[in-house]
Amino acid sequence: MSSERENGRALCSSPINRNPYGHGNTVSDFLSNVSRFKIIESTLREGEQFANAFFDTQKKIEIARALDEFGVDYIELTNPCASDQSRLDCEAICKLGLKAKILTHIRCHMDDARIAVATGVDGVDVMIGTSSLMRQHSHGKDIEYIKKTAIEVINFVKSHGIEVRFSTEDSFRSDLVDLLSIYSAVDQVGVHRVGVADTIGCASPRQVYELIRVLRGVVSCDIETHFHDDAGCAIANAYCALEAGATHIDTSVLGIGERNGITPLGGPDGADGRHASRSKYRLDKLKDLEDLVAEAVQINIPFNNYITGLCAFTHKAGIHAKAILNDPSTYEIINPTDFGMARYVHFASRLTGWNAIRSRAQQLNISMTEKQYKECTAKIKALADIRPIAMDDADSIIRTYYRNIQSGEDNPLMDLNADEIVPFAAKKKEPREVPSA
Amino acid sequence: MSSERENGRALCSSPINRNPYGHGNTVSDFLSNVSRFKIIESTLREGEQFANAFFDTQKKIEIARALDEFGVDYIELTNPCASDQSRLDCEAICKLGLKAKILTHIRCHMDDARIAVATGVDGVDVMIGTSSLMRQHSHGKDIEYIKKTAIEVINFVKSHGIEVRFSTEDSFRSDLVDLLSIYSAVDQVGVHRVGVADTIGCASPRQVYELIRVLRGVVSCDIETHFHDDAGCAIANAYCALEAGATHIDTSVLGIGERNGITPLGGPDGADGRHASRSKYRLDKLKDLEDLVAEAVQINIPFNNYITGLCAFTHKAGIHAKAILNDPSTYEIINPTDFGMARYVHFASRLTGWNAIRSRAQQLNISMTEKQYKECTAKIKALADIRPIAMDDADSIIRTYYRNIQSGEDNPLMDLNADEIVPFAAKKKEPREVPSA
Repeated sequence: MSSERENGRALCSSPINRNPYGHGNTVSDFLSNVSRFKIIESTLREGEQFANAFFDTQKKIEIARALDEFGVDYIELTNPCASDQSRLDCEAICKLGLKAKILTHIRCHMDDARIAVATGVDGVDVMIGTSSLMRQHSHGKDIEYIKKTAIEVINFVKSHGIEVRFSTEDSFRSDLVDLLSIYSAVDQVGVHRVGVADTIGCASPRQVYELIRVLRGVVSCDIETHFHDDAGCAIANAYCALEAGATHIDTSVLGIGERNGITPLGGPDGADGRHASRSKYRLDKLKDLEDLVAEAVQINIPFNNYITGLCAFTHKAGIHAKAILNDPSTYEIINPTDFGMARYVHFASRLTGWNAIRSRAQQLNISMTEKQYKECTAKIKALADIRPIAMDDADSIIRTYYRNIQSGEDNPLMDLNADEIVPFAAKKKEPREVPSA
Repeated sequence: MSSERENGRALCSSPINRNPYGHGNTVSDFLSNVSRFKIIESTLREGEQFANAFFDTQKKIEIARALDEFGVDYIELTNPCASDQSRLDCEAICKLGLKAKILTHIRCHMDDARIAVATGVDGVDVMIGTSSLMRQHSHGKDIEYIKKTAIEVINFVKSHGIEVRFSTEDSFRSDLVDLLSIYSAVDQVGVHRVGVADTIGCASPRQVYELIRVLRGVVSCDIETHFHDDAGCAIANAYCALEAGATHIDTSVLGIGERNGITPLGGPDGADGRHASRSKYRLDKLKDLEDLVAEAVQINIPFNNYITGLCAFTHKAGIHAKAILNDPSTYEIINPTDFGMARYVHFASRLTGWNAIRSRAQQLNISMTEKQYKECTAKIKALADIRPIAMDDADSIIRTYYRNIQSGEDNPLMDLNADEIVPFAAKKKEPREVPSA
């Protein structure tokens, strides 16, 4: 049973068995970095571009410390040239002595580079737009100019003994030959990482795999990737990039950033559920981090957030509930406890099944026959047809039903208020407006 | 310029050019159904399994009518065997005379099938678990039994002259040989569609592509797909399934469903931005539909919802704002007006650039020199370092700056309240707690 379960999980979520032909095989995909990537956490750069974000120095430091505790490999900060305060904040965070390396993100320009290296950062992330649209409407430079400037900036940053990354912007709408030519040139001058950015969120997962796979054969340095979520593919694209050999993933807490943001922190770990428990990151701190940032930018955690959302581990349908009670991995790829979360089987609804009711009864120290559980379930479903019932309503029905059996008396199954008794007594099926439980 | 823009969009979001090697080529991918899929809308089935969902008859009818107006091809309803009210609601919706075909979703069992065909639906969606985990913990049947029962149910439904789909559950953890054997058997008895379901949300995009691609070669009927979002890949997986030849996608409004739900309605259209304007669906109705369902299940639209979220078309960084003002497609793959949404360039922040301020000034009928715009921008950035500034604050700074130039006097740039004047006058950079704008 235990090995059955392990196989089930492995079949599903391991990079070595994701191929549907591959179930049962144990051949490793040496290209894939799904279980060994590094996180460049950009809540304090990309996240600051989120419409609602205004981080003061104190909040930035609080977030940086929390990210460090989570265990991110890098923390990326806003360009110190953006404003005086941005520069001062960058200097302050560099002095915290965090385990995470501190990066700042600049335009591919010597003016920016000089200010960046003076802040005390461990590395500089350089970027420039390479698509024809970016070149035309943003900076207006040609590819040869970009290459020349990039090399100048890279050599300058390296001469200060710190890391340097060179990224194109809007990589997926750039000419492939231009892209590879630039990446190859900066690789040859010893850049630490090249970056591929889906700045506008247009890339599809298979397109990402193809581009990263090709790039992996062109450069020998590390490959960082950055995906926007305009089309809802930012997690999937990060996952496919890792499969193709990318080494670093840009994230932000809750994915906050320009427009609707980027790959969220924890996303690639979530997409690879099986490795979560072996993750080098403190995934159990994810919820706290999300709460911290959500409060700072005054947003609610989305109800459907992929791991920490309200309902991520809530099971409702009868047949689901039954299987979950037998073995959680039947309907769960991620173990909620890896992320400090708990499972919840929702049984107070008309979709509930008798297995869920039996399980709940047992939690209440009530034991009945199968026939009695089924009859009790039918009564709960009948009541749930009339109005939404809360968990304690369901508990009350189970308890009353049980007492009725024991005593031989026939008491009402729920305390209904006056105007609810009429339709219930008349067994009317007309749904009515009632306060939600 | 116009053709430049068209090329830019096409390069990015067209199925025929998604391959990074393919930029400029016009060879069509005949396998891909990205621009010609059908929607099986399951808000009233999968969505009813959402923890917070309780739809009464009236609300179900309201949602069904709104889905029909949006133009979905099918509306799927909860199993009529779930409760008496579920059956009555199903019958009521069948009688509405909607353009969309009405389906109901049942277990692979003759008892369910008999009740389903009696409701008046246009088709029945049959499903059964095929993974070893599902077989062990849910229904406990073997593959030969599944095949035999499936054929019996399919023949029975077809004998009533209505559509029938056969789906496996937890398809991505099922044995591939079992899966193909069952799909092939039901295809041979004339099932209208086979369904592939990532019931637990474990599938990765490339795994989806592979499985659907293989299945496309095995069956001649239509292929429906159903993706849960536990790992945040439900939109990407649907997109890859269409690329591999799937014909139907299951959706729900806002993705509501078991746990954190499934592919949201509009997701595949959003992921394929270029086709949005040519979509057969009323995408401009998406926001209204989402508001209707969000209110019914008492949730907030996630701030980062992929098209209709608060910030989907909000641009903040200076260099982004400049390019967006020149040509929106520089940083947008989706035209917001296709979805009845509007663009917003956020310029009241320390990340703003002078191009955004010039654009805003022009909207305010204020014209200045480049040097003046840049100085005005610097002042806005300096103020934004001290406290969050709202759009009308920025407007006020622009107007006051302009008046100062015109009059030669030096008036304060913002109306600051008493305790704000001190740090501002002293040019202190210490950020302070102030009410958010």
